[in-house]
Amino acid sequence: MVIDKLYEKAKKNTAVCLGLDTKEDFLPKYIQKKDMSLAEKYLEFNKKIIDATKNDVACYKVQIACYEALGLEGLKCYSKTLKYIKQTDNIVIADVKRGDISSTAQMYATGHFSGDFEADFITVNTYMGEDAISPYFDYVKNNEKGIFALVKTSNKLGYQIQDLKCEDESLVYENMAKLVDKWGSDFIGKCGYSSIGAVVGLTYPKEFEKIKDIMKNTFFLIPGYGAQGGTGKDIANIFKDGICGVVNSSRGIIASHKNKVETESFTDITMKAVKDIKEDINQWLK
Amino acid sequence: MVIDKLYEKAKKNTAVCLGLDTKEDFLPKYIQKKDMSLAEKYLEFNKKIIDATKNDVACYKVQIACYEALGLEGLKCYSKTLKYIKQTDNIVIADVKRGDISSTAQMYATGHFSGDFEADFITVNTYMGEDAISPYFDYVKNNEKGIFALVKTSNKLGYQIQDLKCEDESLVYENMAKLVDKWGSDFIGKCGYSSIGAVVGLTYPKEFEKIKDIMKNTFFLIPGYGAQGGTGKDIANIFKDGICGVVNSSRGIIASHKNKVETESFTDITMKAVKDIKEDINQWLK
Repeated sequence: MVIDKLYEKAKKNTAVCLGLDTKEDFLPKYIQKKDMSLAEKYLEFNKKIIDATKNDVACYKVQIACYEALGLEGLKCYSKTLKYIKQTDNIVIADVKRGDISSTAQMYATGHFSGDFEADFITVNTYMGEDAISPYFDYVKNNEKGIFALVKTSNKLGYQIQDLKCEDESLVYENMAKLVDKWGSDFIGKCGYSSIGAVVGLTYPKEFEKIKDIMKNTFFLIPGYGAQGGTGKDIANIFKDGICGVVNSSRGIIASHKNKVETESFTDITMKAVKDIKEDINQWLK
Repeated sequence: MVIDKLYEKAKKNTAVCLGLDTKEDFLPKYIQKKDMSLAEKYLEFNKKIIDATKNDVACYKVQIACYEALGLEGLKCYSKTLKYIKQTDNIVIADVKRGDISSTAQMYATGHFSGDFEADFITVNTYMGEDAISPYFDYVKNNEKGIFALVKTSNKLGYQIQDLKCEDESLVYENMAKLVDKWGSDFIGKCGYSSIGAVVGLTYPKEFEKIKDIMKNTFFLIPGYGAQGGTGKDIANIFKDGICGVVNSSRGIIASHKNKVETESFTDITMKAVKDIKEDINQWLK
């Protein structure tokens, strides 16, 4: 199970998931000035980041939207970034949030679990229910692949649907948590967690505790640390019985050099940013 | 407003939205046998379908998953298909079901409302709430673009989340309907409908009536006709006060020639399939 590999990486290195949500503003000036396409600049930037951090993170998360925004050239860079991460023997989560009826989900599974865009995990939106996720199960079972399903997202207005109260007093996201936990029960690895994980934002720490009680065997992909408000203490609270997820940080790492170091040595700052997050988490862990 | 153009096309031609969910199985044998890549075959097939139907449909819907499944080559074909439709002065709905936090949604907006993947409408999943959709509003207001947000989907297990009953007796999808209707109220065109539409499956006709009552100014993208079970009578019931949506048919049109005509003249069957659906709807309309 792919979850075992992710769990081991998180334990050995740190629970940091490095988010490659690359944007033009984040590029150091020496790359911005180069005579190449924006997509090529993204790739050069991503490679430098990966080279500098490949032994110090749990995994990488690549936000496909940043690359779709650049069209075909952007997706070529996306593909090359995934392949580059694979060469370093690291895990990559494709943050694609796909979700559709089963025949379509089957196409997405082919697209993101093989070929040009092959990733280890993908994020999935399951507002459409189990048939939007079940086509991925074969890959989870037979191809060392995994999924993170959206349960409670980190953004401000996610409550509009996710926090609706049901007639039995449960909230919508709690029902989603139950469903995802049930789907995951067939794919539990040696580490005790399932290859079907959940996305839960760190921005709602109290809700996270309730979700953890529902999802005993679920590994979490946790956005919302840093700029969005989540702290090391919040993480430590979730990790009090051991690491049960990876904490995504993107801008906080990959833009940390901006207005400080704009030359090739910008990755010194990148590495320091990873180390700082690690320490921010570890100071609260026993 | 782009919705006015779509409404006029639907009134003038027919309410049929032709779904280009192209798959290898659907290709006529003479294309299958050609010495070209699968993606190139898809493009040749799509062009033939578009040439044959360009004056007889309301719009085209292109399911991006079918193209993502073929990787970079597939997305090149996707891009060329969108451009080809644009040349015929027809409207294209990109069925991408994207949805993410606002900074990411902004990237998706750039990606799917401009450049290589420019479409007129995109489908959006709004489980994440208003900030997953508001970045598109600028394009709706200023760039003749539109959205179809998932409200009640046509698949079997959509009820798991969408039909949860809330404490005030409303269902989750009714709450989604209210939200989408509210968001759409700022973007109502001359035809009386908003450029922010909703996806509601024809497979749940009773629920559709309830949704119609909530969403008075909403134009619908309606999947679920044909193979999934929705009938012309179901559509007529929804259209009883006039056309208020487009009905998607994919396999029922683009695979209609299979095992009948496998030569270049396969589009005779395609055209007949469009005509048949039109008649199936019209027989119930006054």
